This record gives sequence, C-alpha cells and structure tokens, in this order.
Amino acid sequence: MNTIDQMKLFFEPKSLAILGVSRKTGPGAFNIVECLQLYGYQGKVYPVNPNAREILGIRSYPSVEAIQEPIDLAVISLDRSQVLPAVESCVNAGIKALVVISQGLADVGKEGKVLQDKIRDLARAKGARIVGPNTMGVVNNFHDFTTSSIPLVKTHSPVSTICQSGIFFTGFYSFTGPIGKAIDIGNTCDVDFADVLEYYASDTKTRIIVLHIEGIQEGRKFFQAARKVAPEKVVLALKTGRTEMGGQKAASHSGSIAGKDFLYDAAFRQSGIIRARDSEVLTDLVKGFSRLPLPEGDRIALLTYTGGGGVMAVDRMVDMKLPISPLSSQALEKFSPLVSSWLPLGNPIDMWTSVMKFGAKPMYKTYLETLLQDDKVDAVFCLILSPKLPGQEFFDVSDEIIEAAARFPDKPIVVWAYGPDLEKITQKLDDSGRVVILPSAERAVQLLFSLWERRRFLERMPKKGNPSEGRRG
Amino acid sequence: MNTIDQMKLFFEPKSLAILGVSRKTGPGAFNIVECLQLYGYQGKVYPVNPNAREILGIRSYPSVEAIQEPIDLAVISLDRSQVLPAVESCVNAGIKALVVISQGLADVGKEGKVLQDKIRDLARAKGARIVGPNTMGVVNNFHDFTTSSIPLVKTHSPVSTICQSGIFFTGFYSFTGPIGKAIDIGNTCDVDFADVLEYYASDTKTRIIVLHIEGIQEGRKFFQAARKVAPEKVVLALKTGRTEMGGQKAASHSGSIAGKDFLYDAAFRQSGIIRARDSEVLTDLVKGFSRLPLPEGDRIALLTYTGGGGVMAVDRMVDMKLPISPLSSQALEKFSPLVSSWLPLGNPIDMWTSVMKFGAKPMYKTYLETLLQDDKVDAVFCLILSPKLPGQEFFDVSDEIIEAAARFPDKPIVVWAYGPDLEKITQKLDDSGRVVILPSAERAVQLLFSLWERRRFLERMPKKGNPSEGRRG
Repeated sequence: MNTIDQMKLFFEPKSLAILGVSRKTGPGAFNIVECLQLYGYQGKVYPVNPNAREILGIRSYPSVEAIQEPIDLAVISLDRSQVLPAVESCVNAGIKALVVISQGLADVGKEGKVLQDKIRDLARAKGARIVGPNTMGVVNNFHDFTTSSIPLVKTHSPVSTICQSGIFFTGFYSFTGPIGKAIDIGNTCDVDFADVLEYYASDTKTRIIVLHIEGIQEGRKFFQAARKVAPEKVVLALKTGRTEMGGQKAASHSGSIAGKDFLYDAAFRQSGIIRARDSEVLTDLVKGFSRLPLPEGDRIALLTYTGGGGVMAVDRMVDMKLPISPLSSQALEKFSPLVSSWLPLGNPIDMWTSVMKFGAKPMYKTYLETLLQDDKVDAVFCLILSPKLPGQEFFDVSDEIIEAAARFPDKPIVVWAYGPDLEKITQKLDDSGRVVILPSAERAVQLLFSLWERRRFLERMPKKGNPSEGRRG
Repeated sequence: MNTIDQMKLFFEPKSLAILGVSRKTGPGAFNIVECLQLYGYQGKVYPVNPNAREILGIRSYPSVEAIQEPIDLAVISLDRSQVLPAVESCVNAGIKALVVISQGLADVGKEGKVLQDKIRDLARAKGARIVGPNTMGVVNNFHDFTTSSIPLVKTHSPVSTICQSGIFFTGFYSFTGPIGKAIDIGNTCDVDFADVLEYYASDTKTRIIVLHIEGIQEGRKFFQAARKVAPEKVVLALKTGRTEMGGQKAASHSGSIAGKDFLYDAAFRQSGIIRARDSEVLTDLVKGFSRLPLPEGDRIALLTYTGGGGVMAVDRMVDMKLPISPLSSQALEKFSPLVSSWLPLGNPIDMWTSVMKFGAKPMYKTYLETLLQDDKVDAVFCLILSPKLPGQEFFDVSDEIIEAAARFPDKPIVVWAYGPDLEKITQKLDDSGRVVILPSAERAVQLLFSLWERRRFLERMPKKGNPSEGRRG
C-alpha cells in the first residue's frame, strides 16, 4: 500500500476496533466511543472488552478475532503491559493501521523503548503502520472522526496539524485556531512527520499545515517531504525542546531527540517552513496566512493616529529588518492639505491632526485607500484605537478598514488595535475574513514579516504552470 | 515651592483655567470641559474663549486676566501660534502650573524647539512649571480630574503612570490595566520623569509606577529619583525608540533624544527599574506586581497535565535562566502513589496519569498544596486547560487554584492557561485577586522572572526599619 492510502486508513477509516474502552465515563475513565458518538461518526465501531457485551448501546466483542468484519483501523488504549499482545492480535487479524494511545513506552526510558521497538517490528512485518504510542491519535473533522477520549469542538478549516502532544487537540484554540484535520504522532515509533506531510500535500481539504515538533528522527526524509509540499501549501512549525533541558524533557515526553536548535532554524528556512517563536505567534500566523494575500514586496506603510504607538511599531520593524520606506509623491500630495502645515509628512503617517480637523472615519477612508493604491506600498499596517465609551465612537474605523480591504484584495492589511474594546473589534474584523487584527506592535510586525518571508520563498522557487499559484497564503 | 507641592497643582488642582476650549464637540472639536463634567470634577472651571460668554453651561471669560480668582492650573489647547502669548498671560496672572496640550513645538524640529524653549524660560522666570507641550496632560481618578479631551474610563487603582504619549491614556487597558493617576509629559520641556517620580514616591495612592519613556534628557536626575523610589514602590518601564530609526521617530514625536538602548538597560537594572520588552509584557507585569507576593527564591515548581506544554515552559525557563529545581523528597513521596509506576517523577510534575486515575480536581488540590508547602519551592507555575464543552468540565481546576492561593498567600502562583474558554477562566482568576493567568509559556515565565528580579533587587538594598516592607510587589 502506498503512504497516502495508508494514511487514509488513519484519517478516513470506514470501520474501527477500539481496544481498552471502558464501560462508562467518569473521573479518569474517558471514553473514546462516547466521543465518537458525540462527533457523529458514521463508520462502524467495534468496541473490544472481554468484560462487557455492550458499551454505550453498541455490541462489544471479547477479542479482535471475534469481530469477523473488515477493520480499517484499531485504536489501542490499554495499560502498557497489554499493548504488545493487543498489537499482535490486531496485525494477525489483518488490520493495517493502529493508533497506540498507551503511555509508558519510549517516553519513560530504555525499557519502554525496547517494548516500543517490538510492537513496531511486529506491525511492520505484517505491513501495518502504527501512530504513537503515547498519543491522542487522529482527528478528521471532515469525516466526523476522532480517536480523542476528551470531547473536542468540531471545526471545519483548511488548517491541518501534525503534533507530538495532545495539547494541540484540546487546546487548538490557543495554538492554531480552528482545525480540519490533526494527528498526534506521539513517540513517533513508525508514522512520522514525513508520512503525514505526504498525505496533507495530496489532501484537497488542507491548505495550511502546522507542525508541533519535539524532535525529528529521520531528518532527510522529513526535509524532502517538506520541500515538496512547501511551494504548494503554507507550512508553519513550532519547534519545542529548543534548549538542552527542554530537549531532555521532550525525550521524557515523546521520546524525541530534540537536536541542535540552530540546525532546525537553517533547515526550516531552506525547505520553506516558517517557524513561529512561540504559541501566540503561531496562532497569529495561522490567522494571517488563512486570510491575507502575500505582499509583492517588503514596503510597509504604517498608518497611525498615535505618534507614540508609531515609535513602538517602527522599533519592531527595524528589529525585523523591514524597511520604513518612503511613500510616493502622489500620496504625499494627497495627504498634505489634510494635516497641519507644520507637520512633517512621511512614513509612519501620523493622521492625528487630520483626525482632529476632519474626523477619524472620513480621514481613514482617504488615507487607507490612497496607501492601498500607492505603487510604492506593498502592505498597510494600521494602528487603531478600539473605542468603547460614548464620545469615543468617533474613533471606530473598523468599517472603513473592512471596506478598503474588500476594494483592494491584493494588498495585506494588518491592524494593531489597543484600547477598551479589543474583543468586539477583533471579532468584527475577524468576521470580515480579510483583515488580521493583533494586540501588539510586536505580533503585527511579526506577521507582516512572515508574509513577506513566504513571498520571498515562493519567488526563489522555479516557476511552474500558473505563476500566481500559491500566492495567497 | 517644592517639587511635590508643585506637582500637586497638576494632579490635585482646586481650580483651573482652560484656554482654547471650543463651544461644542464634534468631529475634531474635542472638549476638555465636557470631559471634566463627565468625570465629575468638583473644582472650579474657568473656560477662556474670546468668542463665547458661556460654554456647556459654564460662564466663559474673554481672557485669563478677566477671571480674577485664584487659579491652580492653566490648560492651554490652542494653535501653536497662540501658545506663547497664552503662556505669557497665564504666568503674568500668577498661575504656577501650566499644561500645554498644543502640538507642533520641539516635536516638529528646530523652529518649534526655539518656541518651546521660549515658553519654558518665560514660565521659569515666574516660578511656574510646564507639563508638555504636545501632551494629553494629567489624569487623577482619585480627584475626578482629567485634562484629556477624549472621554476616558475612570478607574481607581494603585497604578500610576508617567508617559510620553496619549496612547497610555486612551489605551491604558492594553498597556497597564486600570490606572489611578497618569501624566503625559509629552515633549518634556520642563516637568520631567524625575519631578513626577518624586510626587508618586510621596503619594499614598500610588503603589506601582509605570514609565513609558521615549527619551530622558537629564539622566542623572532621573536615575537618582528612580533609585530613591524603587526600594519602596515597584517601577516598571517600557522604553521605546529603542532602535536608531525608532529613536528618530521618537524625536519627531516627543522631541526626545532616545540615546543608546543598552545604556538604558544597564541603568534601569542598577536603579531597580524593571523593563518590559513590549506592551503585552508590561500589562502582565502590572497585573503580577499588583496581585502576587514576591518569591523567596528562584525555585519554580511546574505543575502540568500536558507533557508537551511542560516542554514549552521548560524551554522558556531555561531561556530566562530560571532553574528547574528538584522537589523535596517529602513531595515526591506524596506524589509517588498517585502516578503510574513507570512514570519518572520530577520537575516539571506531569500529573496526567493521576488525572486519569483520580480526576483533575482532587488531584490538583493535593499536588498544588503539597508544592506550596514544600520548602524547596518558591513559586508554582501551573499549566491548565480552560474547559468549555460538556465532558471537559472535569478539567476545571480554577476553584482549587483560588483556594490554594488563599491558603498559602506567601508564594506566588502563575497560571498559563490554554484551550477553548480562556476569557471565562481569566476573569474568574482575575476576580480572585491572588493569581495571575497568562496565555503563553513565554509570558508566564517572564512574569515569574520579573518577580524574582524584584526580590533580588530588594535583597541588595540596605535593610531598613521593617524588613518585610515592600515585599509584596
């Protein structure tokens, strides 16, 4: 079976056996069958439990052998002492895909590693593949399918993840935002990043791939797979176990060998993977690449009505080596009559005196649309107040930004908003689907930088059929 | 008049003249008088406007001279061409404190700087002091007083700020959280950081001081004032204009000379000022120093039910040179029967197998209270899921954390929460007033580090009367 068909057994199984499902839920007794029912899974489910004849209304089987039906996938959630015989019975029954949820294998040291190698060798000898051990398994929201024993929110999204911790399942809100597909490869005894990358590369539902990496065993295989997919789909990575001590903890978490961090840095860059420095930035980048066009160049116009905020933004742009480039003379001529005569015009564009004279809303429309039309501007960075109090609604320029983004869909607009009502304005701009709003200069500039980084990577690629392919995130 | 009495004229004026108030509000015509009325200001207000006899129900005067009553403070919000004669008439009328809101002085270059020097010299010759120009002025929420022309939310808080941008007035929610007093010293032609620090040092309402610094003119005076107050009150700083280009923009914003950034770093550290690297961290630190006790040492116990999250937290602790120190044997003995036998026990403490067996809530109580009692632990860093879905409430340990914090008030607890309902759990822990919850490992570790930094600074100080003074943030 080729890798993609093999991965389909994990992501799109028509039938599954679940070994180690308890008869009821409760403190400590999570139940995969119950989660599948809540998820609306349409395939066949065969619980295996020698002590039950029925679990949550479904007929239960004493053993895998007793099922006597074709099974795409087995999910093993047993104490580690029972894992080896369970794997053996599954592969003997002809099952070609196994998710081993159980902990206590390579994640706890040598003895566990020996056991883990045994189950992998057993599976491989029969042409079966293993995800895990020490994993929450697989989520495919387009197939109403999950092996998680903790209930999850089912979202549809072009974002697919490959992770080495369940934190990306239960906590996806805080790391990636809504996901479509996800796999926790855990200790990665067999199925690895490269295998899943190959599947996601071919998957029409997946447009953005997020990797949470504690360690990579087969570097060459990984980077070959990454280089193949990166020109077509955005690949973002959060590499943890960056430090020596963090690496040791990664070894005792997923049995990973973390490796030298600077090597990852270089290899990510070469293969077109964009690295997020922390979990907040990762969420920002997913949002940005989902919504924004890539800029044609690195010339960013910074539009602000606070000089103090402008200084903070410029600091960060300089940190990231993004130029504070001059505007065209046409733009400057347009702005000149709108500001006080003594105010020097330039980039950042300080609108404050225009706002005082003519109001924020009409001025925002004029300034923003002029910048979006300016051929010396590749992206616009807006710094705005999120107003709340009566008397402050004056400052609400969210409609003007949304309208400008719709009129000029080819240039990215990133907004840094501050003030009393961030949640409301964030929701509103998020709903527009065309603008990204972030709560600090640092995070807004990081996103602008990464959009530009992606653009440069694509420009280095040899041209293929349609040159605009892959332009939008 | 000494500096403190002088500053009181700015912060606690009994009467004020306002020059340049317009007759009505509207786009671009903000109105300080209206803001004062909304704020409930109880002092006398004398609007000065040669074209009006009455403004918002208050008698208006054609000139400062016409008022003929004692005036503590004058607020000048006129076009820059009118500033010089206005300052002259105010100081001639015996007013000793002036807020010059007008822009277009040193912030726009040499010509403006000449004018600015003139008004400062005029004031000084008559024993008057100037705040600004190019400022939003002063806020004192304990005096129902503001010179802001944009309506603000009035909050009571022990946090007082000194800034060089109005962004800290309108946007305080995003930079400091609730404030009690604030001053925008703008171009800082006269009243500077040191003057206000002296006032805040003596002010019983102020416990935490936040500085937004674009540039400091008189370094020695500033650091002397800072060294004097820092052992008694927490002083936090956000220094902007860090980069050369950012510094140039600061020059054209507040006329500041930004100076070499590494010199600020060293001087802040020596004088006990804690520097925030960005605006989000600044908010986090204000929250932390407002709520948490300082740790006795740097030994942090990391309590987690996700190994993957633990790795991220360790990475950041190593970055910040915080040790991952061993727990006491008593604590390990207590935890040992609660986890699977194959799980190595240590720091971070991975509770997952305990959670599976016995449930998150009772286990959290046991683990957290054991750590808070452990004399090898100075602070606890909790990593938790914020649950939302039915079936996830199992994970909600917010009550257990709040109770433990109340029982053990001498050790700080910082929580990194991830997952679907951050807002709700953040609000709940915030309301408890004893725990700080943050949305990333990076920000949580930064806060723990800064609490420890403060502790070390206080330990370096010569002992005074009561050694426990200043212990809590």
